[in-house]
Amino acid sequence: MAKRDTSRDGFSNKLETFVLTHFRPLWMWLNRSKRLGDWVNGKIIDRAVKKTKCRPFQFSTLSPYTSWHSLTDRSWSGRHLPPKSQTGLPPVADVTKLFQRKPDIGGTLSKKSTLLFASFAQWFTDSFLMTADQNRRKNYSNHQIDLNPLYGLNRDVTLQLRYRSEEAGRKGRLKSELIGGEEYALRLLMPGSVDRKPEFSLLPLPLRLNADWPSGKSETVFAFGGDRANATPVTAALNTLFLREHNRIAGILEKNHPSWDDDRVFETTRNVLIVLLIKIVIEEYINHISPYWFRLRANPRAAWNTSWNKPNWIAAEFNLLYRWHGLIPDTLAWDGKKIPIDQTFLDNGLLLKAGLGQMLQNASRQEAGKLGLFNSTPSLLTVERDSIQQGRDNELASYNDYREAMAYPRATRFEQISGDPDVVAGLRRVYGDDIEKVEFFVGLFAEEAHPRAVVPSLIGRMVAIDAFSQALTNPLLSERIFNEETFTAEGMAIIAETKGLKDVVDRNVPGGAGNLFISMNQQI
Amino acid sequence: MAKRDTSRDGFSNKLETFVLTHFRPLWMWLNRSKRLGDWVNGKIIDRAVKKTKCRPFQFSTLSPYTSWHSLTDRSWSGRHLPPKSQTGLPPVADVTKLFQRKPDIGGTLSKKSTLLFASFAQWFTDSFLMTADQNRRKNYSNHQIDLNPLYGLNRDVTLQLRYRSEEAGRKGRLKSELIGGEEYALRLLMPGSVDRKPEFSLLPLPLRLNADWPSGKSETVFAFGGDRANATPVTAALNTLFLREHNRIAGILEKNHPSWDDDRVFETTRNVLIVLLIKIVIEEYINHISPYWFRLRANPRAAWNTSWNKPNWIAAEFNLLYRWHGLIPDTLAWDGKKIPIDQTFLDNGLLLKAGLGQMLQNASRQEAGKLGLFNSTPSLLTVERDSIQQGRDNELASYNDYREAMAYPRATRFEQISGDPDVVAGLRRVYGDDIEKVEFFVGLFAEEAHPRAVVPSLIGRMVAIDAFSQALTNPLLSERIFNEETFTAEGMAIIAETKGLKDVVDRNVPGGAGNLFISMNQQI
Repeated sequence: MAKRDTSRDGFSNKLETFVLTHFRPLWMWLNRSKRLGDWVNGKIIDRAVKKTKCRPFQFSTLSPYTSWHSLTDRSWSGRHLPPKSQTGLPPVADVTKLFQRKPDIGGTLSKKSTLLFASFAQWFTDSFLMTADQNRRKNYSNHQIDLNPLYGLNRDVTLQLRYRSEEAGRKGRLKSELIGGEEYALRLLMPGSVDRKPEFSLLPLPLRLNADWPSGKSETVFAFGGDRANATPVTAALNTLFLREHNRIAGILEKNHPSWDDDRVFETTRNVLIVLLIKIVIEEYINHISPYWFRLRANPRAAWNTSWNKPNWIAAEFNLLYRWHGLIPDTLAWDGKKIPIDQTFLDNGLLLKAGLGQMLQNASRQEAGKLGLFNSTPSLLTVERDSIQQGRDNELASYNDYREAMAYPRATRFEQISGDPDVVAGLRRVYGDDIEKVEFFVGLFAEEAHPRAVVPSLIGRMVAIDAFSQALTNPLLSERIFNEETFTAEGMAIIAETKGLKDVVDRNVPGGAGNLFISMNQQI
Repeated sequence: MAKRDTSRDGFSNKLETFVLTHFRPLWMWLNRSKRLGDWVNGKIIDRAVKKTKCRPFQFSTLSPYTSWHSLTDRSWSGRHLPPKSQTGLPPVADVTKLFQRKPDIGGTLSKKSTLLFASFAQWFTDSFLMTADQNRRKNYSNHQIDLNPLYGLNRDVTLQLRYRSEEAGRKGRLKSELIGGEEYALRLLMPGSVDRKPEFSLLPLPLRLNADWPSGKSETVFAFGGDRANATPVTAALNTLFLREHNRIAGILEKNHPSWDDDRVFETTRNVLIVLLIKIVIEEYINHISPYWFRLRANPRAAWNTSWNKPNWIAAEFNLLYRWHGLIPDTLAWDGKKIPIDQTFLDNGLLLKAGLGQMLQNASRQEAGKLGLFNSTPSLLTVERDSIQQGRDNELASYNDYREAMAYPRATRFEQISGDPDVVAGLRRVYGDDIEKVEFFVGLFAEEAHPRAVVPSLIGRMVAIDAFSQALTNPLLSERIFNEETFTAEGMAIIAETKGLKDVVDRNVPGGAGNLFISMNQQI
């Protein structure tokens, strides 16, 4: 592999990366400091978000001009840059080939990430990146981190997912059953069919569940709030983990607050769970992605007095840049065998057989694929094709336009994007010699990542912008609301003592997680 | 009238009022300065909003605890303070008597405000203060200044209010007709009935329009977007004024941008109209209310980098404190006669007879009533009664609790609320000697206003908080959007040259407004 030409990285970008990825002892010292660390945390986050202009976006995907309709109807996606239709682009099929994994070597594996990381990314982002199938410029997102894979997109769905206290004799619980001593959601479908049980009539059907799905598999589909929470046994395991944690915390709150009714126990538990998720997202997931030595903190104060604390609106670009299919390996290692990955889709049999702890350990022992071109598993190539087409349907500006909008100088040679000769040759084959033609979606994944980073630089920057500016704006983290009145003292304590997924697993599998390896990092 | 006991006004409040209501030459000099004036403007607005905690509110009227439901469902009203049910309150009927206008003298008149001011307050606030009739803790507001009295609360209504360009041969226009050379909205109802014409099937019926309404009056009801825009001939005149301005500006944009389609002309015109309204609200209406010498400016920058630029949510308290029925006189002077005010409700006959300019001049020549206790016209006493009841239904905290929340010391004697012996005696009669019992709604209007102010102090403070923090947060005023791309150069020029209602009238009545007296102030 040749060395990438870094002449167009930009001086201040280079300096910033250098400082944040060197001087490890300094950063480790700051990581141990409460007050100074909080201050540095605020500065790094503020600097990260301010790499581009803050919301409200000037345009949505509705129209190339601003209107009251475009400023208020969030079923159209936001956009960081105005539409700019590119002409003379190569056929989508040719571009799709840039994503094809080299079949002879079974793909390139990540040196840092596990399948648990990949599955968490999938499960988490499926809760707000929701392209409408009928019109790929639209979405059906709530634009919030609200744990809708667990609770549903709206209140009517939530009510079907809950017991009423009269039924259950217990307050605030989500519907569940015990199987082999472990707690799972109820099953969604009627036996031998792909029709929902009447009590779940308003729940979403799993995306891409077809009538010809093997009944053995369809009988393991859980009654979840999200239409993609059943996508793989690992995403289903994560949803199951949060379901157990919900019911566990509801039990604590019910006991400590006997005067509370069913609704109050439920809602206060949900408050805790949402913040628990945001904490894991920033402190485990984002820190796994980041190449920095400083460990970012889910400190709500970082957003209280900023100019970027503005209403959320998921952007079309954010939706596309999160298509991390390269992370998905070709096979899932299981009991010494390798199961082709597409056979695990929409099949929770493995989870039910292994149990939650083993399932998550399995995902933690499995290496994720490496994010980049030439590394998508064959069964996902149609999704890559659709993504390229979606970029064109949304008339996204070019890769170079987005570099510029995100404070990177425009690239002038393919070798500035990557040092990998295959990538350079691939780009040249598809786009000729015109670097200005490189599309946003392709350029994102063509970029060579920093050695300590999990994602290429422009993706990393844009993830940081949209993640911090939309996670820390959650109303539950706001100044008047992030307190014991909202979460209870015991809820605040649970939030404080949770550093990552393993802590939640520890509280929710038989015997705890002490002997289990549960990690987004290949090594801890 | 005795002198009010000012010992509990608070030192910093007194100082602030003193500085802002004295040193007139200094303020006048600042009023003429662009840059320094803008800076002072930002400081005064920021200070005004920060008198209390910023949004998101901890609670809505949904529940006495915080939940994802309470944080996201805006059909429940926000609240500045948590519910605090007061016990031992006097009967609502007794409290209502505190609002009864003294019939022998026909009420107290304002020394500063005209009926045009009162009608503008009514028409403007009717666009976001919308209590749901079925449940007075709920609302059907968009929580935005979006000119919905003109455009309707949602897109389906908007489409019925517009011509499609194919029909009209002109782009972006609202439906209208010429009567006596003047432009008016079409009529809503079918002749001789209170049923809507089919083309207006989705428009709201005017609130309190009964089937037994005289057909002569019902035939003058306009097809407006708001359910209260037809409430009086003056509110209908204001809506008509903005309808004319819409169609006038649409004509300019159509001419200057021949490539634009019907939607773009319409939407861009609406952008201009909404900001025009906000400008009039701050620069004419708020400055009329304010006792300060500095004239506040609708400078969008004042909100760009503030911690209080957060999503709007109309509070239950804001809804109640805006019940300014005292402003409404008993009679409307007309052609040397005095028409009882309740006979003018839901009757646009006067407007059609007089024409827009004359109607608005009539409203400008008529003095408004003075805001306060013992000054509501008899026909509105049932509304006062409902307001008192609404405060109790929403379990609002006491007047003194709100003083404290808004940075006023708690009052300890009735004489600190007002120097008017009738008011003090009235409060004592109803609440005994317990000042802590005084309800929010009653305390607000019992307060004696500053001599130069139009509203009592606590109302003034709370209006400022909610007005600035919800008007300047309009997305059209945000940093990336307040520019010529959104409004066009000619649109920006129209906004810049509009200082008040009279400028809009001048552009939209035959012969201009040169000889007309159009003013919220009794003298200019």
